[in-house]
Amino acid sequence: MKPLIFAHHSSSQLVSSFAEKVNGEITHVESHDFPDGESYLRVEQNCFGRTAIIIADLHQPNAKVLPLIFLCETLKELKIATIILVAPYLPYMRQDKQFQPGEGVTSRYFAKILSQHVDKLITIDPHLHRYNSLDEIYSIPSIVLHTTAYIAQWIKESVNKPLIIGPDSESEQWAAATANIINCPFIILQKERFGDRDVQVSPPEASCYKDHTPVLIDDIISTGKTMIKTAEALKEDGLNAPVCIGVHALFSGEAFNEMQQANIKDIVTCSTVSHESNKIDISGLLAKAITT
Amino acid sequence: MKPLIFAHHSSSQLVSSFAEKVNGEITHVESHDFPDGESYLRVEQNCFGRTAIIIADLHQPNAKVLPLIFLCETLKELKIATIILVAPYLPYMRQDKQFQPGEGVTSRYFAKILSQHVDKLITIDPHLHRYNSLDEIYSIPSIVLHTTAYIAQWIKESVNKPLIIGPDSESEQWAAATANIINCPFIILQKERFGDRDVQVSPPEASCYKDHTPVLIDDIISTGKTMIKTAEALKEDGLNAPVCIGVHALFSGEAFNEMQQANIKDIVTCSTVSHESNKIDISGLLAKAITT
Repeated sequence: MKPLIFAHHSSSQLVSSFAEKVNGEITHVESHDFPDGESYLRVEQNCFGRTAIIIADLHQPNAKVLPLIFLCETLKELKIATIILVAPYLPYMRQDKQFQPGEGVTSRYFAKILSQHVDKLITIDPHLHRYNSLDEIYSIPSIVLHTTAYIAQWIKESVNKPLIIGPDSESEQWAAATANIINCPFIILQKERFGDRDVQVSPPEASCYKDHTPVLIDDIISTGKTMIKTAEALKEDGLNAPVCIGVHALFSGEAFNEMQQANIKDIVTCSTVSHESNKIDISGLLAKAITT
Repeated sequence: MKPLIFAHHSSSQLVSSFAEKVNGEITHVESHDFPDGESYLRVEQNCFGRTAIIIADLHQPNAKVLPLIFLCETLKELKIATIILVAPYLPYMRQDKQFQPGEGVTSRYFAKILSQHVDKLITIDPHLHRYNSLDEIYSIPSIVLHTTAYIAQWIKESVNKPLIIGPDSESEQWAAATANIINCPFIILQKERFGDRDVQVSPPEASCYKDHTPVLIDDIISTGKTMIKTAEALKEDGLNAPVCIGVHALFSGEAFNEMQQANIKDIVTCSTVSHESNKIDISGLLAKAITT
């Protein structure tokens, strides 16, 4: 039997493209919010013994989680056999330890909650920093997918003489792997963070790459400050305006506008979080995790 | 040792009044939301072996529940002994059965989630319609408190010749009990509901009460439509403009403004959900549940 595909805040384009590739049946959930902010939902499909795949956009997660749990509980009452949660962007991965005594380690609590309600998790490039694997916090099996090959392919097709730049040491993993596939040079910068939105980037020593197109790669674009500051530093060094690539298009507040007005040639993201900058379709990557 | 009192979206007035009455220690939680919508929290207080009382305003619940769970999990890591959740307004009580096949029975799912994270629940006038008791859905012990005596007291002190009116058969429980305490007349109307915001009320046969002040009582004021239509029907029958009393001040959208512009003398609510119409303080009712 075909798997049932449910969308939870994810783009219809991603869902339909994914459903086609896994030969799944897109399943409508009747839902609305009452005036008091409570959610209603109804699944009319016969679910008995079927596999459900929920494609969930969990960016800005707080208000989305309770209705997601309600959907899972409803499916279980309708005797679904298995629930696979596809969360292309996995939130609550950054608070991965107590930096100060008394802090809530939200990554762990969030993982515990999701693990209670779904049977399997599929995600893309989660922010694994101090954790080596999702298994350290998720008690359900998970598949972690990587966009490196997709990003490298896009750069190959779209960028002339790329110079890959990782804006900080954490991004070295993406930058190095991508440069390796394309067979082009890469450099890693140092970043200091003074608050949520205040970032300083050391100037790159890259003046020998003046005929290249810098390509900044990071897993998450949130405030965009890192990318903007790096682009300014590149300009001071006489380099070209960079192409900025992020896996996850979070873009808080005015970040996207600010980036568009900065010394940046192009802003490109993967379709893990729906956004107008999505130029790299990852439905095939997700589908492969189901079909193989 | 004094209980630790935590506020979760509840008014500082309710919390301080409650804390004073139970001789509790108001405990600050350092918290903020990151630009990506994820919540941060830190509890600096030594919690070892203490009792935590969380006063939570859970109106418009979806975005409030995940941070509430995070608070509970953090307190447990800090070796709190007991967590008592005081939710003066308990959301997700209305979907108490499958009206259509495939509907999620959210009252049950919500109860299951809360029951996993706190040890005890205290609430006020929950919308018990098809459930006889919270024990049918909550697996933790719960205390249900009633505002009837507080509302009756307010009416006694503030309303001249009250005629208590329940706008539908569900509200008979509040109206009858209140009239009984005050020893004044009461009538119950019939209501038909055609949608979230569309309500028709049958005209009351109350023309013999023209010198009375009608007092409409309901557990929840949400869209206000029921109260407004009833006030209009009273006017057609030549009765005075009513005082409208609700236990829980939900007031979706423009409801409060619309009620103020209608044929209504006064709008009064209990302080279960923080709102400018709160005139009946229920901190004493909550405190009594803790101290006795």
